Amino acid sequence: MAVIKTQVRTGVYYDSARLMQLQRTLANLPGVEDAGVVMGTETNKELLARVDLLSPEAINSRENDLVIVVSSDDPKIAEEAIAQVDELLAARKDISETVARPRTLEAADEILPESSWVLISVAGRFAARVARQTMALGKHVFLFSDNVSVEEEIALKAEAAEKGLLVMGPDCGTAIVNGIGLGFANKVRKGPIGMVAAAGTGLQQVSSRIHQLGGGLTYGIGTGGRDLSEKIGGVTFLMALDVLIRDPETKVIVLVSKPPSPIVAEEVLRQAREAGKPVVVNFIGRTPISRHVGNLYYASGLDDAATIAVDLAKNPPAPYVAPELGLDRFSKGQKYLRGLFSGGTLAYEAQYLLTEYLPKVYANAPINKANKLMDALTSVEHTIVDLGEDEFTVGRLHPMMDNELRIRRLLDEAKDPEVAVIMLDVVIGFGSHEDPASEIAPAIAKAKDIAKKAGRYLEVAVVVTGTDEDPQKLSAQIEPLKKAGAWVSTSNEEVVRYVGSLLQGLNSVKVAEKVKATPVDLATLKKPLEAINVGLESFYDNLKAQGTPAVHLDWRPAAGGNEKLIGILERLKKYE
Amino acid sequence: MAVIKTQVRTGVYYDSARLMQLQRTLANLPGVEDAGVVMGTETNKELLARVDLLSPEAINSRENDLVIVVSSDDPKIAEEAIAQVDELLAARKDISETVARPRTLEAADEILPESSWVLISVAGRFAARVARQTMALGKHVFLFSDNVSVEEEIALKAEAAEKGLLVMGPDCGTAIVNGIGLGFANKVRKGPIGMVAAAGTGLQQVSSRIHQLGGGLTYGIGTGGRDLSEKIGGVTFLMALDVLIRDPETKVIVLVSKPPSPIVAEEVLRQAREAGKPVVVNFIGRTPISRHVGNLYYASGLDDAATIAVDLAKNPPAPYVAPELGLDRFSKGQKYLRGLFSGGTLAYEAQYLLTEYLPKVYANAPINKANKLMDALTSVEHTIVDLGEDEFTVGRLHPMMDNELRIRRLLDEAKDPEVAVIMLDVVIGFGSHEDPASEIAPAIAKAKDIAKKAGRYLEVAVVVTGTDEDPQKLSAQIEPLKKAGAWVSTSNEEVVRYVGSLLQGLNSVKVAEKVKATPVDLATLKKPLEAINVGLESFYDNLKAQGTPAVHLDWRPAAGGNEKLIGILERLKKYE
Repeated sequence: MAVIKTQVRTGVYYDSARLMQLQRTLANLPGVEDAGVVMGTETNKELLARVDLLSPEAINSRENDLVIVVSSDDPKIAEEAIAQVDELLAARKDISETVARPRTLEAADEILPESSWVLISVAGRFAARVARQTMALGKHVFLFSDNVSVEEEIALKAEAAEKGLLVMGPDCGTAIVNGIGLGFANKVRKGPIGMVAAAGTGLQQVSSRIHQLGGGLTYGIGTGGRDLSEKIGGVTFLMALDVLIRDPETKVIVLVSKPPSPIVAEEVLRQAREAGKPVVVNFIGRTPISRHVGNLYYASGLDDAATIAVDLAKNPPAPYVAPELGLDRFSKGQKYLRGLFSGGTLAYEAQYLLTEYLPKVYANAPINKANKLMDALTSVEHTIVDLGEDEFTVGRLHPMMDNELRIRRLLDEAKDPEVAVIMLDVVIGFGSHEDPASEIAPAIAKAKDIAKKAGRYLEVAVVVTGTDEDPQKLSAQIEPLKKAGAWVSTSNEEVVRYVGSLLQGLNSVKVAEKVKATPVDLATLKKPLEAINVGLESFYDNLKAQGTPAVHLDWRPAAGGNEKLIGILERLKKYE
Repeated sequence: MAVIKTQVRTGVYYDSARLMQLQRTLANLPGVEDAGVVMGTETNKELLARVDLLSPEAINSRENDLVIVVSSDDPKIAEEAIAQVDELLAARKDISETVARPRTLEAADEILPESSWVLISVAGRFAARVARQTMALGKHVFLFSDNVSVEEEIALKAEAAEKGLLVMGPDCGTAIVNGIGLGFANKVRKGPIGMVAAAGTGLQQVSSRIHQLGGGLTYGIGTGGRDLSEKIGGVTFLMALDVLIRDPETKVIVLVSKPPSPIVAEEVLRQAREAGKPVVVNFIGRTPISRHVGNLYYASGLDDAATIAVDLAKNPPAPYVAPELGLDRFSKGQKYLRGLFSGGTLAYEAQYLLTEYLPKVYANAPINKANKLMDALTSVEHTIVDLGEDEFTVGRLHPMMDNELRIRRLLDEAKDPEVAVIMLDVVIGFGSHEDPASEIAPAIAKAKDIAKKAGRYLEVAVVVTGTDEDPQKLSAQIEPLKKAGAWVSTSNEEVVRYVGSLLQGLNSVKVAEKVKATPVDLATLKKPLEAINVGLESFYDNLKAQGTPAVHLDWRPAAGGNEKLIGILERLKKYE
């Protein structure tokens, strides 16, 4: 039966690489069975327990305590191993300190004044402080550290937006700037594809696949996984997207994220639609209905995103020009849709497709309960009514046979000053009304006239379903509807997308109304990368391996990591 | 101020077409301002109120009462109009009864013994009874009537499944059988595409678009909107799909529905995967992640479904042969996945893609809260663990740098007799472990060996992310992993889909364990259509217009529609 010897150290700080090194050295000592070197968190304690290394002292340790445990059949060997800890840590220290290293960011900046980036990978509780020092020097932040609070992240990014600096992270695993990888990053050739990713291995997988497929990157900008949450608001993501839109060398943009907050996603997509270049979007877990709308290309996965981007870079599509929607025909205050359907499935599909354009569409037969219309006879904001629902057809003909109810409703809706667009379906064929257009076309003309006389413009969009072999003949139905001023197509999807674009335009918030971040200076980003590294030494080694001028800071937390003392020291500094 | 005169009739039955006719005639009488002829439902009362036609008598009417209201400035004119109602109804009657018509289904059957279809569009409360009479004669049912209860539908379809008959509906708006449209249907040319739709105008829109695009249909089988609900279980949908699979003239199948119950959808897709022909799927409101898996093609909308189907019919793909998964390598009881990831986004994408294969995958960083793993250290059923999550990395190196924790877990999972597949990611590049395969490959070999010694087969599938320019070199990492027996790809999606297919296979319910419906006799469906019509006369007219031999039943509810009396009459009949 093995014996466990334990040492708990309070108020010390070593980086994770050094701790791993220590653990391995201890475990490999002759006669030692196993060893653990961890911080005293609950998860770590459970992990120690699973490998029979949890001693009573370890159980009582706290989150910020360093716990060192060694097990051996021989208690003496275990004790001797523990006794060597200081020596082992010191030995390691000697190796890394053969080069003289600056102890402050300011000193590092003097050594490498052209550096525009600082890589930060110190323990989470110290990271925000270092990031603020970085921004004070006017440098961009690559913030690898995790366990940074949301409040800290909000504050850091507000400062970054004001100063026009990028804060990648916290918990940003990877980035590629001018061909140089930061943090965990793959060696990817330079090329015309620019990426923004709120997903570390997402960026790595897509950029690696791009490289494997023969493509290359301008920038791969990480933002940290929380950036697109509602609280953070996508500050870094939007600033980075703006950089790629302005960068003339970036021809194709790829956006990758776990599902963003819907509000933030809408803002990202709005900016992307105005990019003037193709944008490939992969919001993992949020599969859009359509694969390609305007200059946006929706990918089904990371691999698909890489494939599409490489294809677009090789075969650039003709520049996308958004169709002229004529939004100025509408009066101020006109903003709502009223859909009056005879076909249940067409009404259903319309609601579903409109989720890509409008936040909420009410319906008597809604796609989800939250959108249920209180009263099928009274429209609310955006509303779609299926007049073929059971509630309308007890002892009454189906609206495909009898247009009366729909026509009354059409004229009512036309009187509503907030209504901009009315959508109708006309389903012909056996069983349907023998000539629906003969009744509906005049009603459309009348509805448009009601709006016109009130100084408004009313768009009426109609999907006609049927064939030219139907008794009513498709073309003979379309013609009078068009003459009455309706916008007509035989594809429900096409009509819905037209209607959706109109309403999206009429309901979009003007950019000027939003607070905008200070744009990042493109020239700084274009400079060959030079960087200061604070934290994991391996990140410094990687920069050197890539031939990047870099300085590694001999960083340790002030006051041995005691946060109270750090606070006091910082306040004292202000009085200096 | 107009005066409203009202007549309420109780216990009468007229079809909706006749009521519409009456309303129009009344409204067009000289001096009459407006008229309404409706059943006394709440919605209809509200509609009357909106056009100022709601009288106190109408307010007091009940759901099964026929309400006739006429408004006029002259009370005498209104009264005279009401007085004419019997005469107007009678006049209409005279016209339609110039031909002698059978009064019972049995009599109609004698006139048209080759008819295999009965179209039913009587009021909902009488419809199930007529459907049962139809099936007693061994004929298929096209059940247009709505307002039929779920319980009635369950009973009807159970009988249909037993007898090998199709019950399309209730609330089935449309169907196309051998080029003949039933109910609301468009004239669509014959061709190699077969459709099943639980969505009336869905079938009309897709079949019309197929025709417009130059394609054509074998069958367009409607099922009624509720068929794919969990309660009904897709009885008609599955029987119809089975017909199209067996029909040699159907080369491409199109399935359309509003979102089915997940369980029923899974059964439909399982059957579709074994169709041996391309199947286009459009479950509106349920956008699948991938567009094309095996012989299944997922459409983004009705229009897209038509386009894909016509393309497939014109350019038939090579017959799809499902890859050999070697499921027999696994032992009985092996059925679960354990994913051990270092990359958070890769773990997330894996969970998301697996929703297409497995009902539930637990995770410590789940895509939705319901799938949260209680304890990150203990796997449950299908589990994906992201070992790079904050909980694992306090004072510990990221799993991309330090493989120890993952290797321990890998060996633990290999011991679980229910585990069939373990998925790993290996992310190389700057920052990562200098040679992860040197540690992970031997561990994989060991894990597989643990399973082998216990008489099991363990599949280990690995995604490797990186490039050949990375310090670790992609190909140099892949080789030892493959040698250790791992299934390796550089695409996360490819690995997940392989793993998903394996687990889907290991977890699928054997067909033999399910109750199967009696297959529909294909020969009967292939005969030129002949039909009996019960209900809306216009449906009979449509059949005649299409040159279809048809008989219209002079149907009226027994005992004037009094349900109590009908029940007594039916019981009496049994004693005859």
